[in-house]
Amino acid sequence: MKDFLFGAAYYDEYMPYDRIDDDFKLLKEGGFNVVRIAESTWSSLEPSDGVFDFTHIDRMLDAAQKYGIKVIVGTPTYAIPSWLDKKYPDIIAETKAGKGIYGARQQNDLTNPDYLRYCERIIRKLTEHVAKHPCVIGYQLDNETRSAGAASIRTQKIFINKLKEKYKDIDLFNKEFGLDYWSNRISSWEDFPDIRGTINQSLSAAYKGFLRETVTGFIKWQAMIVNEYKKPEQFITNNLDYSWTTHSFGLQPLTDQADVAEYLDITGTDIYHPSAGDFTGREIAFCSGISRSLKKAPYIVLETQAQGNPGWLPYRGQLRLAAYSHIAGGACGILYWHFHSIHNAIESYWKGILSHDLLPNETYKELTDFKKEFDTISHKALISYKNNRIAILIDTASLVGLEEFPISSDLDYNTILRNLYDTLYDLNLECDFVYKEDDLTEYDLIIVPALYSADDKCLEKIRDFIYRGGHVLMTFKSCFSNNNLKIYPDRQPHGMTDCTGACYDMFTVPNEEIRVKIDGVSYPVTHWMELLKPDRAEVIAYYDHPMRKDYAAITRNRYGEGQITYLGCNLSKDGLKALIIKVLKAAGLSLSENTYPCIVRTGYNKAGRRIHYFFNYSSDTIKAVYEGNTGTEILTGKALHKGDNFNMNPWTVVIIEEA
Amino acid sequence: MKDFLFGAAYYDEYMPYDRIDDDFKLLKEGGFNVVRIAESTWSSLEPSDGVFDFTHIDRMLDAAQKYGIKVIVGTPTYAIPSWLDKKYPDIIAETKAGKGIYGARQQNDLTNPDYLRYCERIIRKLTEHVAKHPCVIGYQLDNETRSAGAASIRTQKIFINKLKEKYKDIDLFNKEFGLDYWSNRISSWEDFPDIRGTINQSLSAAYKGFLRETVTGFIKWQAMIVNEYKKPEQFITNNLDYSWTTHSFGLQPLTDQADVAEYLDITGTDIYHPSAGDFTGREIAFCSGISRSLKKAPYIVLETQAQGNPGWLPYRGQLRLAAYSHIAGGACGILYWHFHSIHNAIESYWKGILSHDLLPNETYKELTDFKKEFDTISHKALISYKNNRIAILIDTASLVGLEEFPISSDLDYNTILRNLYDTLYDLNLECDFVYKEDDLTEYDLIIVPALYSADDKCLEKIRDFIYRGGHVLMTFKSCFSNNNLKIYPDRQPHGMTDCTGACYDMFTVPNEEIRVKIDGVSYPVTHWMELLKPDRAEVIAYYDHPMRKDYAAITRNRYGEGQITYLGCNLSKDGLKALIIKVLKAAGLSLSENTYPCIVRTGYNKAGRRIHYFFNYSSDTIKAVYEGNTGTEILTGKALHKGDNFNMNPWTVVIIEEA
Amino acid sequence: MKDFLFGAAYYDEYMPYDRIDDDFKLLKEGGFNVVRIAESTWSSLEPSDGVFDFTHIDRMLDAAQKYGIKVIVGTPTYAIPSWLDKKYPDIIAETKAGKGIYGARQQNDLTNPDYLRYCERIIRKLTEHVAKHPCVIGYQLDNETRSAGAASIRTQKIFINKLKEKYKDIDLFNKEFGLDYWSNRISSWEDFPDIRGTINQSLSAAYKGFLRETVTGFIKWQAMIVNEYKKPEQFITNNLDYSWTTHSFGLQPLTDQADVAEYLDITGTDIYHPSAGDFTGREIAFCSGISRSLKKAPYIVLETQAQGNPGWLPYRGQLRLAAYSHIAGGACGILYWHFHSIHNAIESYWKGILSHDLLPNETYKELTDFKKEFDTISHKALISYKNNRIAILIDTASLVGLEEFPISSDLDYNTILRNLYDTLYDLNLECDFVYKEDDLTEYDLIIVPALYSADDKCLEKIRDFIYRGGHVLMTFKSCFSNNNLKIYPDRQPHGMTDCTGACYDMFTVPNEEIRVKIDGVSYPVTHWMELLKPDRAEVIAYYDHPMRKDYAAITRNRYGEGQITYLGCNLSKDGLKALIIKVLKAAGLSLSENTYPCIVRTGYNKAGRRIHYFFNYSSDTIKAVYEGNTGTEILTGKALHKGDNFNMNPWTVVIIEEA
Repeated sequence: MKDFLFGAAYYDEYMPYDRIDDDFKLLKEGGFNVVRIAESTWSSLEPSDGVFDFTHIDRMLDAAQKYGIKVIVGTPTYAIPSWLDKKYPDIIAETKAGKGIYGARQQNDLTNPDYLRYCERIIRKLTEHVAKHPCVIGYQLDNETRSAGAASIRTQKIFINKLKEKYKDIDLFNKEFGLDYWSNRISSWEDFPDIRGTINQSLSAAYKGFLRETVTGFIKWQAMIVNEYKKPEQFITNNLDYSWTTHSFGLQPLTDQADVAEYLDITGTDIYHPSAGDFTGREIAFCSGISRSLKKAPYIVLETQAQGNPGWLPYRGQLRLAAYSHIAGGACGILYWHFHSIHNAIESYWKGILSHDLLPNETYKELTDFKKEFDTISHKALISYKNNRIAILIDTASLVGLEEFPISSDLDYNTILRNLYDTLYDLNLECDFVYKEDDLTEYDLIIVPALYSADDKCLEKIRDFIYRGGHVLMTFKSCFSNNNLKIYPDRQPHGMTDCTGACYDMFTVPNEEIRVKIDGVSYPVTHWMELLKPDRAEVIAYYDHPMRKDYAAITRNRYGEGQITYLGCNLSKDGLKALIIKVLKAAGLSLSENTYPCIVRTGYNKAGRRIHYFFNYSSDTIKAVYEGNTGTEILTGKALHKGDNFNMNPWTVVIIEEA
Repeated sequence: MKDFLFGAAYYDEYMPYDRIDDDFKLLKEGGFNVVRIAESTWSSLEPSDGVFDFTHIDRMLDAAQKYGIKVIVGTPTYAIPSWLDKKYPDIIAETKAGKGIYGARQQNDLTNPDYLRYCERIIRKLTEHVAKHPCVIGYQLDNETRSAGAASIRTQKIFINKLKEKYKDIDLFNKEFGLDYWSNRISSWEDFPDIRGTINQSLSAAYKGFLRETVTGFIKWQAMIVNEYKKPEQFITNNLDYSWTTHSFGLQPLTDQADVAEYLDITGTDIYHPSAGDFTGREIAFCSGISRSLKKAPYIVLETQAQGNPGWLPYRGQLRLAAYSHIAGGACGILYWHFHSIHNAIESYWKGILSHDLLPNETYKELTDFKKEFDTISHKALISYKNNRIAILIDTASLVGLEEFPISSDLDYNTILRNLYDTLYDLNLECDFVYKEDDLTEYDLIIVPALYSADDKCLEKIRDFIYRGGHVLMTFKSCFSNNNLKIYPDRQPHGMTDCTGACYDMFTVPNEEIRVKIDGVSYPVTHWMELLKPDRAEVIAYYDHPMRKDYAAITRNRYGEGQITYLGCNLSKDGLKALIIKVLKAAGLSLSENTYPCIVRTGYNKAGRRIHYFFNYSSDTIKAVYEGNTGTEILTGKALHKGDNFNMNPWTVVIIEEA
Repeated sequence: MKDFLFGAAYYDEYMPYDRIDDDFKLLKEGGFNVVRIAESTWSSLEPSDGVFDFTHIDRMLDAAQKYGIKVIVGTPTYAIPSWLDKKYPDIIAETKAGKGIYGARQQNDLTNPDYLRYCERIIRKLTEHVAKHPCVIGYQLDNETRSAGAASIRTQKIFINKLKEKYKDIDLFNKEFGLDYWSNRISSWEDFPDIRGTINQSLSAAYKGFLRETVTGFIKWQAMIVNEYKKPEQFITNNLDYSWTTHSFGLQPLTDQADVAEYLDITGTDIYHPSAGDFTGREIAFCSGISRSLKKAPYIVLETQAQGNPGWLPYRGQLRLAAYSHIAGGACGILYWHFHSIHNAIESYWKGILSHDLLPNETYKELTDFKKEFDTISHKALISYKNNRIAILIDTASLVGLEEFPISSDLDYNTILRNLYDTLYDLNLECDFVYKEDDLTEYDLIIVPALYSADDKCLEKIRDFIYRGGHVLMTFKSCFSNNNLKIYPDRQPHGMTDCTGACYDMFTVPNEEIRVKIDGVSYPVTHWMELLKPDRAEVIAYYDHPMRKDYAAITRNRYGEGQITYLGCNLSKDGLKALIIKVLKAAGLSLSENTYPCIVRTGYNKAGRRIHYFFNYSSDTIKAVYEGNTGTEILTGKALHKGDNFNMNPWTVVIIEEA
């Protein structure tokens, strides 16, 4: 990306009256340089079967050209027109809950041949129509792509055929999936029962894996089509998103992001986060960490909130702070969803930059001011790469493992992951995210949350990493089952016991108060506890309970040149913090004096200079300590030396470039 | 109505043994003068297709004649016989949840032609059979009529045809409903998707409006039929009811009561309320206010509880108090549901006057005593009309607007409405209810809760009312969308900003503690806050929060001769009370010294004399102050002068007629 | 049963690798003498239609023979193979929720002729195959048999025909079920509507009764088939279980256990209970009481937990304590579910004796040690019979009555039952359980919880019991409806008012604080209160509330030689305890000085000697008092005299045999 992208989604189709010129003028005047269009409006582009109408596209492209705005064009496949549903009712996925009804988006069965045929035609028509336009800089394929839980008998057949191909011997398949249990054995592929009734989690997880593969295949296929039309300088992207609570929260269970990313020229992402009194920067940091790690490269935030949902209306200063937070995470572009607000339908209260009155307002002004400021420093302030010493090993198969065999409704994989991540974040310890397939050797410390599903190859890699001097912090529920969620029939943690120097065969849920002591301070244990029996391991904490006191809760062991700390139970946030500090010291990593709400994030700019972003995520004035080498505060030109203290006003940022 | 009606529903069909004579004798001896029959027993009246059996009807009419009891006959259409369901399974509505199953009542698709044909026949047969009987004084059409959420494809076609007729140009329709959003645009009426999947609230609300119209149409059609048979002195009514929580609570979302009432000779209503320690009189007052306002005339309470549900068993004295509460609201008749209790099926624990043992009991005795007492004073005590200075503007479309775009699960339209109403009630400020179509000019103060959906004509009427000297208290979420829930694309509150002297384009949900000060006292804000920017308005309160303090929460502005107070946020009950007192003073209305649990309700009797009802809704003895002109306590003959104090025993009533 | 059975369920089919010899060797070495096999593995036994494969059966029988282990063979009918579902999709029951999907167990429509035909064939084949094997000691018919809520139109037809047969006159049927209500009357059996929509609880309860009859019929039919093959010394059993909360809790609503038990040679049962800090012994005692009472004879625990679910992992000593708890309840065998843990599917975390690593572990060791110890004392310690003075009258029809007409979601029949039972248990008052059909005369005190549904014959029996000198404690909601849940149309409690000396026709739910005083101490009333009007009865407590104070809450009355205490309201546990102590004293029964957590349970061994089991269900050391005649502590040989005090360590048992 040559320039920093700053823009918004724009929908000429939705406007209550003709505003195209007014809006693009406002965009231009406000320093916005890009719009994202078309990904939601198939029914306007093809109002009836085979009839194409690019009026709105042309209006937006013309206005873009007039005002010098770039355009990202989305393929409009995530929301089909009603005529297509009437013609091919099977496109809307039949799921566990039954047949879906037309109306909502992301309900399509990605394996439906009629769907794919119509997708291909609109993608070709649209891409051909826009590819040569000078404003078009790239394409977004589909939108937050989902498999919609498609589970019709036809779709299941594809899955069964894949199993057949993979296992060939049906006995082998029955054995691996343990289908003798409860009389679920099948002696012929023709007898395969409807997957929607299964009580076999190996099967259920395999089907989820299959659905994730259909997402990857769909994006790969779209990329292939668009590549036939796009100019070489145009890019292909997709807006990868996250698991959702009331905002972006954790690893996306429905997509194999690393696989999808292979077919993209640049990673795109959607990040929505709490705001006002709940704005902490954690979600932006966490999500940007995943997005940056996918290609170890800058990425575009294709969607983030302007005013957003009613509860998110930002305090003054927070929009600027959020923009810098994205940039500090490695973003090379930020597009708001959306420029204007919407006057009908389900997202009417998901407000854009402009309110429903479509007049320049405080949101517009704050973003405009930010952009003016940033234009003066972007050449220094943009992050090219990071050099983190810590990585968290994330794994969708393990996430699904804990979905299938839940600990409890309030402690899923993503909560375990976020508890670890947030503890690092609050301590100003930046990290990368790695997958099982990735190289670990460049890191000093790998944190392994609940790696429930792992084959021996993966475990060998972790062991090897430790043996060669690496440090690992591994949590409970790791190394328990193989790739098919079949529980390993040997000592747990499977394949790691020589490495951990401790093992267990019993685990329980603490129904009473149970605590552990770390360095003399006591912390509560909740949700899960493995009764560790140390062999060679050093015991960091035993369970503090008269009937469980003989068992270890946390152990540490040297293995080769390295060391692994095994956490056998779920700790409170304070306990987790104490443990992580202990692990860090052992790994020879240093701690910052700054802690949340004073957040420091660093990276290197194009010139290879180190940049320090200091954020105050609070309504109070706070003190910060500069811990980098001598540098310059780039907005004021003020020099800063290691150890310098300075004050930060509420919700502000300070950016320092090392000399 | 010549005489005050006092009676109960009666079902000879349900009795475990023959009691007809015993029961009518008990009725007579107890002072009951009317029964309501037949509305629930189609399967007994027409045991199989075309076979009619009026044995039970005749038994009841004969007994009525013998004991001089009047009879209201209900058309039995809300619960169909099982043979009709077998023959025409499509009569039971197919809804969003799928096809209903026979058994429960009010499941019928009111547009189903087979249903209507069979309804017509039983109505004609029954009406013809009873019309000439001297005891029959009137007809109830159907029972708490509902549309049952009918949404089969056949039913939807009727809706689509109405849209087609209304909009003609499909582009206009797409524009108005914003269907381009998420590819929902339709280019042909034939492509109209199943409404049950829609994510477009304009469409969803329009369908709800259509279903309400089918209710009106159904009642109108029944009235037409019954009119062919009924004698001139017989009346037609229908038991209009209310939204339900665990009792009658707010405006009924499924009926346009004002429209239905046009086809009735007298308004009927069903009112159920908390009892025992939870009896406050609020529900009776609120519901009676709506019922009386429909025709600005007395109405019949066709159903109210005797013993009711287990949790409602009244304290001694409460049945008398409830009866006087209905009368103070303007009722000219009270019928209990029901005389006897039931020994099988779903309402077995919804007890009548008699318990399951069917013997005269405490309930019977208290009602009998009440009736004896009331017979001596009814000529003075019955209310003919009221002369309230305040009205609340209620609106089903706005109620639906907040259903479609909810603030939160615990703050819907009816809760906002009831918070306002209950505050008035507790302060002894009686009010009428008006609809958008009604004349406002006779009032001093109009209270406008969350008028979410309003066209310019309606807003013009409100502006005009203020301009000519009226006072308005308008709450948040008013004047936000048009009749189709399309949000107005200009400054909010739309069409009122010159009048309010303040506007806003930002709103949020207070996730932190936020308060406002009214006259120096601080109150919490919850659920919703609009960030008001006063222009000419006087600011009554700013938001008390460091990051939101620049915005107003409540403003007041003169416009013409009048004044509007705009409440931009949801207040606690205390806060609301403080604001309403402030508004009242500005409107020149006076406050009573009596407050809840001492409730005073007034009106004028046939002689045009003012009647004051004093109620003590508590288990304590309380003090009351008489604030009317010199009058007489009509039960004791004691004279009372303005300013006189008197004590009231727990759960008692005092009735005073001005001289 | 000659020997005490000690064993586990075993599934060669599920094992991740060949362990048959290792496992049976471990069983043998550990003192286990029985396995239960085959009940879950139809798809392995008959992998496709008509193809039988008894390889796993033979492997297990061979290993059993080699190591001298007995075998109980289960008929595998509760979980069908997928090919059978493909062939006959109607076998999986269609319920109120729609058609079930293959996968889970216990979904079969027990009336489906195809199901029965295939069941018969596999039962015959399997039984024939194993009957002559010397290790096979018995058969379990099906597994925790359920009717699965089958409600297809075909299944309903059977029910309707039974009604038709029973009532003949459809008017009689309409009258008894009160079908005139809400137009539900049917004039022809052909018009019978789908039961799934009914709002008539009499009908709904009758259908539940019909479904329970299909369970009885199914077991009877299986017994008939197995009897054709089995050797005389082999027994037939079935694992009867209990209502489930998060563990075995109360009376099983889906089975008429007393009816099923008639077709069994020995009662079998499944008992799962809380453990660790929540282990109280209550569930074992309650469930064993029901199981023992069915045939007034010892029974086999066919399933109980080893490690069980994660939250149940026992403290050290608790497995031994649980085993003795079962024995103290009258068990003559204990089989754990299961020997090994499972590596795939829904019960992977329901752990057996061995953990997933399949190695001898602490669980195995504790059970092994227990067995060694018990072998030395079993001839003395096994209970042959009990001689309880108290019985609780339990009734499934009344349980269903309160399901159909619930008091509240947190006070169902089983909660009322368990509150009474647990109070007795904590006071060390052992009891039997009797059904309406049983003889009452051998007891001193009958406790009657919420006997909602009872015919006059049953009431006559209770009256007679009292008249002849018995004591009864009867609670609220008793004697309210007949066998069809039709409420009696006379004074409540129906048919008992001369006996109770009190009656009521009003009841309510205490929404405010209401208390009662028993012997001067005040206790709260919750959920339900009947307003009792004493006639001749002594009032034990009035309601302590200004508006309800005239009504009695608890009364006591002599009737003939006996006495009945009627409890008209739901008491807190403390209140219930006070009342029960009062009733006991009146009945001349003595109280133990020991109370929970010191639990004493007694019975008589084969030699007719009285055995006292003392349990400490706590983590504390407690004091116990021996209250029997002089005896010997059979594990230590120490003598004990009446009145002796001794200490008990945490989670231990002391067993004393009277001389």
